[in-house]
Amino acid sequence: MKISQKALACNLSPMRKFHPFAVAATNNGKKIYHLNIGQPDIATPPAYFEAVRNFELPVLEYAPSPGLPVLIKAVRDYYDKLGIHYEESDILITTGGSEALQMLMLSILDNGSEVIIPEPFYPNYNTFIKSAGGTIRPLTTSPEGGYRYAFRQKLEALINENTRAIMFTNPGNPTGVVLTHEELRTIADVAKEHNLFVIGDEVYREFVYGGEQLATIGQFEDINENAVIIDSVSKRFSACGARIGTIITRNKELQQNLMKFCQARLSVATLDQIASAALYSVDSDYFDAVRREYKLRRDTCYNKLLEIPGVVVKEPQGAFYMMAALPVDNADTFQKWLLTDFDDNGDTVMFAPGEGFYATPGKGLNEIRIAYVLKQKDLERAMDLLALGIKKYNETHCK
Amino acid sequence: MKISQKALACNLSPMRKFHPFAVAATNNGKKIYHLNIGQPDIATPPAYFEAVRNFELPVLEYAPSPGLPVLIKAVRDYYDKLGIHYEESDILITTGGSEALQMLMLSILDNGSEVIIPEPFYPNYNTFIKSAGGTIRPLTTSPEGGYRYAFRQKLEALINENTRAIMFTNPGNPTGVVLTHEELRTIADVAKEHNLFVIGDEVYREFVYGGEQLATIGQFEDINENAVIIDSVSKRFSACGARIGTIITRNKELQQNLMKFCQARLSVATLDQIASAALYSVDSDYFDAVRREYKLRRDTCYNKLLEIPGVVVKEPQGAFYMMAALPVDNADTFQKWLLTDFDDNGDTVMFAPGEGFYATPGKGLNEIRIAYVLKQKDLERAMDLLALGIKKYNETHCK
Repeated sequence: MKISQKALACNLSPMRKFHPFAVAATNNGKKIYHLNIGQPDIATPPAYFEAVRNFELPVLEYAPSPGLPVLIKAVRDYYDKLGIHYEESDILITTGGSEALQMLMLSILDNGSEVIIPEPFYPNYNTFIKSAGGTIRPLTTSPEGGYRYAFRQKLEALINENTRAIMFTNPGNPTGVVLTHEELRTIADVAKEHNLFVIGDEVYREFVYGGEQLATIGQFEDINENAVIIDSVSKRFSACGARIGTIITRNKELQQNLMKFCQARLSVATLDQIASAALYSVDSDYFDAVRREYKLRRDTCYNKLLEIPGVVVKEPQGAFYMMAALPVDNADTFQKWLLTDFDDNGDTVMFAPGEGFYATPGKGLNEIRIAYVLKQKDLERAMDLLALGIKKYNETHCK
Repeated sequence: MKISQKALACNLSPMRKFHPFAVAATNNGKKIYHLNIGQPDIATPPAYFEAVRNFELPVLEYAPSPGLPVLIKAVRDYYDKLGIHYEESDILITTGGSEALQMLMLSILDNGSEVIIPEPFYPNYNTFIKSAGGTIRPLTTSPEGGYRYAFRQKLEALINENTRAIMFTNPGNPTGVVLTHEELRTIADVAKEHNLFVIGDEVYREFVYGGEQLATIGQFEDINENAVIIDSVSKRFSACGARIGTIITRNKELQQNLMKFCQARLSVATLDQIASAALYSVDSDYFDAVRREYKLRRDTCYNKLLEIPGVVVKEPQGAFYMMAALPVDNADTFQKWLLTDFDDNGDTVMFAPGEGFYATPGKGLNEIRIAYVLKQKDLERAMDLLALGIKKYNETHCK
């Protein structure tokens, strides 16, 4: 029995290797502060659960393949409020942003096709792209440059006859980078001039902390044929377990091909679609409150990082992640050491080592991603543990 | 912007072309009896909705990538009752049987790989296999032969160096064929001798009408490395809208590669998993009642078909489908005519024309699939409409 080359080219999560050490640490009575996972702790709006409880049909039937009309309309209305008008036929409901990405890559990549993505990037892009036969052409950024990537020259230098798309997470996971209007326009221009798809993974859209208008690659009507938005209720409404996403494009040929995949998998979960439609009825107060909470956490993490000697970090503007270079030889080794050899009054901390977010070998070795999804007090403690850990680790390892 | 060759090789649902005619017929006041879709009308067990209503956590979090332990245990216990023991690590929860199929094909097929499937087969296999770079090598069966396919010589004649798997739906969609123990053993032997995966899509397992024991390709321990089961709650519990499926295999290398896809898409919907676990608590009375109901419908359809001159049909033993050859020149043309030119007291009928279930061009042109998912009285009326339609169509078209 043979496993496919494309499956073999994919990897298990780089975080798995720490799991046995984390289990052992917990079994030894250590408390671990988790800065390593992107699961928000914010309550899901009650509208979700109310909608689920109010379902009264006797048969839980398939939904239509493109999505339930009530949810498609809710998504359309949400974009209307942003000033971007989509037709209902521009919107397909998917099982999370994940299925949207999988379907999209199967629809646009052949063996040897390339997608330009700024690195560090969301590691699961690897599997969606490799399993579709494609490869990632990384645009390398740096902690010193605040991980910014929207430079025409750098983008154009990566384009060749195999390039099919430019893709980015905006606001950024893992970097927290938020594109300015000019940067977004630059990427749109490059995609347009080179006939490339431009894919905005915009699931963190609401999480911006500088008071700027919410932006999307969908706002430029001159790139209707190029632009594809990946969206989801997971982060927006702290409803990760709903697995409800969206793929939005005005490109009719792409829509028609995506529909083939929608039809093949029949439908997206019915109750979760009904309940997600209800989520879109929450008012702007909800987002304001969530934004205030995350901004406070962002400030806490950032300020704590600034106090650690040797850390390289620029202020991130969005999402609930930040990336930083630490004054350690290797973030992987450091993480393992934090679990096996370190504690402060029985406490230790986990983050996501940077290497897994890069496609270029050897990059990100001393970098980490912090997900600030803990309550303020826990977050402060976690960051203090990080600072203390760095100090002790270097005393032990660097003599 | 380029669409991938593999997406272009896939097709939209062949049923779509009838949609505008069905809409027009309805707008003209016709009532359509639907024998064309596999959406059961049986009530979903209330345990599903109770479990959903009882969820009380404030945050709808991601579930673990391989699935919620409570559901994995429920699936394991269900198989234990069938006398087949699996470890929890043999079981992955998926978003419907559909995602199971997609992940499996991405895991085992390279460009040019082949999967042997008896035709007629479930048309969505096309998309899952083509989008993974593979092709279907059909084992052609016939209405005269009752669509049986488990013949060693015929299977072996189709095996070549590109063959990766033998796959079948058992009980069969669209044919209703149920493999005997000996037939299942024959397929297992061939797969074993040729080092092929043998994939049993067994989502209709409970729907057998001859009093036989429920069978699975998982029952042969000598093919642990070869056997893969695709399963789902959709048909078993009339919960199609839950989108909860399973992929089960004792092949550790395959499990590890499937896990890459599970991790990339993060998780399956949390509430639907909790509720599906509750479904597995229904007792055998539920299945007995459902089986009695479908057996009655099977008998109704089959007996009505036997009364139509020129129809070729053998008694189907399972699922809720049957396939038959009609005495018409072309089932597609006939279906369109039923919508546009025929009615009896304002009523007409829809089925699924056979061509879409075949990979071999020109096959199935005068065949249809009937899904007997209507209540007894509606089913009788639908079958009478079919008989009357055939008579009138042939009077009009064949002079």
